[in-house]
Amino acid sequence: MAAEDPIPRTVEWRDGAVRLIDQRELPGRLQFLDCRTVDGLCEAISSLAVRGAPALGAAGAYGVALACRLDADAAGDGGRAASAATVARAAAEAADRLIATRPTAVNLAWGARRVLVAAEAAAAGAAAGAAGGGGAEAVARAALEEAERLAEQDVADNRALGRHGAALVPDGAQVLTHCNAGALATAGFGTALAVVRAAIDAGKRIQVIACETRPFLQGARLTAWELKKDRIPVTLITDNMAGHLMQRERVSCVIVGTDRTAANGDVANKIGTYPLAVLAHRHAIPFYVAAPLSSIDFACPNGDKIPIEERPVREVTHVLGRQIAPSGIRVLNPAFDVTPNELVTAIVTERGIARQPLGRTLRRLVEGAPAKPERKAEARRMRARRR
Amino acid sequence: MAAEDPIPRTVEWRDGAVRLIDQRELPGRLQFLDCRTVDGLCEAISSLAVRGAPALGAAGAYGVALACRLDADAAGDGGRAASAATVARAAAEAADRLIATRPTAVNLAWGARRVLVAAEAAAAGAAAGAAGGGGAEAVARAALEEAERLAEQDVADNRALGRHGAALVPDGAQVLTHCNAGALATAGFGTALAVVRAAIDAGKRIQVIACETRPFLQGARLTAWELKKDRIPVTLITDNMAGHLMQRERVSCVIVGTDRTAANGDVANKIGTYPLAVLAHRHAIPFYVAAPLSSIDFACPNGDKIPIEERPVREVTHVLGRQIAPSGIRVLNPAFDVTPNELVTAIVTERGIARQPLGRTLRRLVEGAPAKPERKAEARRMRARRR
Repeated sequence: MAAEDPIPRTVEWRDGAVRLIDQRELPGRLQFLDCRTVDGLCEAISSLAVRGAPALGAAGAYGVALACRLDADAAGDGGRAASAATVARAAAEAADRLIATRPTAVNLAWGARRVLVAAEAAAAGAAAGAAGGGGAEAVARAALEEAERLAEQDVADNRALGRHGAALVPDGAQVLTHCNAGALATAGFGTALAVVRAAIDAGKRIQVIACETRPFLQGARLTAWELKKDRIPVTLITDNMAGHLMQRERVSCVIVGTDRTAANGDVANKIGTYPLAVLAHRHAIPFYVAAPLSSIDFACPNGDKIPIEERPVREVTHVLGRQIAPSGIRVLNPAFDVTPNELVTAIVTERGIARQPLGRTLRRLVEGAPAKPERKAEARRMRARRR
Repeated sequence: MAAEDPIPRTVEWRDGAVRLIDQRELPGRLQFLDCRTVDGLCEAISSLAVRGAPALGAAGAYGVALACRLDADAAGDGGRAASAATVARAAAEAADRLIATRPTAVNLAWGARRVLVAAEAAAAGAAAGAAGGGGAEAVARAALEEAERLAEQDVADNRALGRHGAALVPDGAQVLTHCNAGALATAGFGTALAVVRAAIDAGKRIQVIACETRPFLQGARLTAWELKKDRIPVTLITDNMAGHLMQRERVSCVIVGTDRTAANGDVANKIGTYPLAVLAHRHAIPFYVAAPLSSIDFACPNGDKIPIEERPVREVTHVLGRQIAPSGIRVLNPAFDVTPNELVTAIVTERGIARQPLGRTLRRLVEGAPAKPERKAEARRMRARRR
């Protein structure tokens, strides 16, 4: 088999535009979409050309940087003069519009706001120093630098998350995953699939079972595509086959990503995640959530408070443009569901693994102290060394 | 809104052929398929032009009748002479081929064998009396009469089943169903949807939530189509949304059909049924199975013994001819799963409702005694009358 090209960056800055892999076109063809306006990027986000919580964080970040760049360049168009202050205002306005496109994924707001804060700080600095066109340029530059930092950090965090999570996955494991929490859902390497990749890097033989993930088929289209590209064995099933495979003892563990995890460990993720957690619980199969800290919303006490996006019904009634249901019937399309924390065996973050009680261990992780199991493991290692 | 035509017969005998609604073409168009050979009918069954356990029972029955008709007519073609014995042999050979097309649905074998028995009895009668061409004709006639009786009985049984089940469904209920256990899955009226239709006939307001039922989309294509045609309110969801709706208390009960129910009440039904039962159990939502006695296999002690058909992977990788997954990956396509009896609240049959312990109550039903709950209800009614 010919070597496959590596998976390109899901979101990046290229020649004054936000360049995305157009995920609507996969697996049929690998095509890029250059967003040169905030409106264009909002449309790309709404229509799922880019999706996945951490990738949306990067898209939001680059989107605010794009708004800054466009406003700073407007001075050169002979239009109104751009100043540090107008650039910062453009950043704020872009952040609002970007955040409104997808209500559930917390990373989108997090990424957009982080670049907005950088832009505003640069504008404040410019106001304190020499204002004018140079100030506008400084703000735009600061915004882009922050977006690039965020994307780089995302990949680094995902690699760290993967290394922590790899310890949970035994050699020979059949890992069931839902939706796409892979490279395509992040700036790179993935979250749930980062755990798989890191386990394989550590020499373990891992097979992935990918749920196709109706209605948008991220599992069939994206997870299968990127795992095949990485030559990781993948078996595709429809979402409703997971229970049967668990009954037949063909699933070692479930690992999923998350669009927003509440402070108590309740997990909002792609619709269909909750049934998998209930089934895993019935079959005593570990259910892991790969959650970079950027996807944990400590301001949100529990899952009831997470807004669930309702998406266009055409995603359900049509598959790749072909109508599968009669016209004129009622259709629902909630994009996410909430898995209560008691069904979650552990949450894997870039700082370590949070086990039950999740609320307390997550808080400890974000405050910087290693989570309990790690401290215990560390204590064991130290005792072993002393012997 | 213009009145819709009634739903035509799913399977019937028409002008020397087995006429089917070609369910592969729904909901796009209502088209009929005339099967004039047993091979043609086997292909129609394998490719799901006709499906649904009771409809397969009728198709198997008519298929054996078709084989008899063709053999009896062969004499007129100037070929070898048909005799009662050759017609009966043709019936046996056809029954074997028909039964082999779908291993899980027990009705297919039941229907084919019932007509085979009728054909063999007629052949034995012919052998005892005057043999020859007249005997062949008598066998073919007896086979068709038996097939017609079976189809008529199916509709009558479904109506009785519906009346029994209607008592379980409260006014205002949101009934979640999976796959298509409607008119299209039977000779008419349906099984799970018979309960819905009977409840509506009894004046109750019922809404149906239809799981789309990947991979073949019987829910989106067939259940939505026939309910819309009957003006029964239906809401379409993807299979993985059922858990979310149960969490939100938007499901009153689940009613599904069955392809084969074991003697102990374990239920084989369309893949995805088991997860619904597990979810219903978690949410204390009643889970009902509409099972004509012809779909209960008393020779099969439990669900482990039910063969699970593995279908072509193209059903998963392609939707209406469009490829949704990369080529060259592994794919599974088990067509059914088994729901253990402890997750089944009750089984509704044409003779009454079987509650726990299902093995014992089912046995009682088939042996003709009314099931316990009904006897209790009867006793209550008699006490009330005495007052």
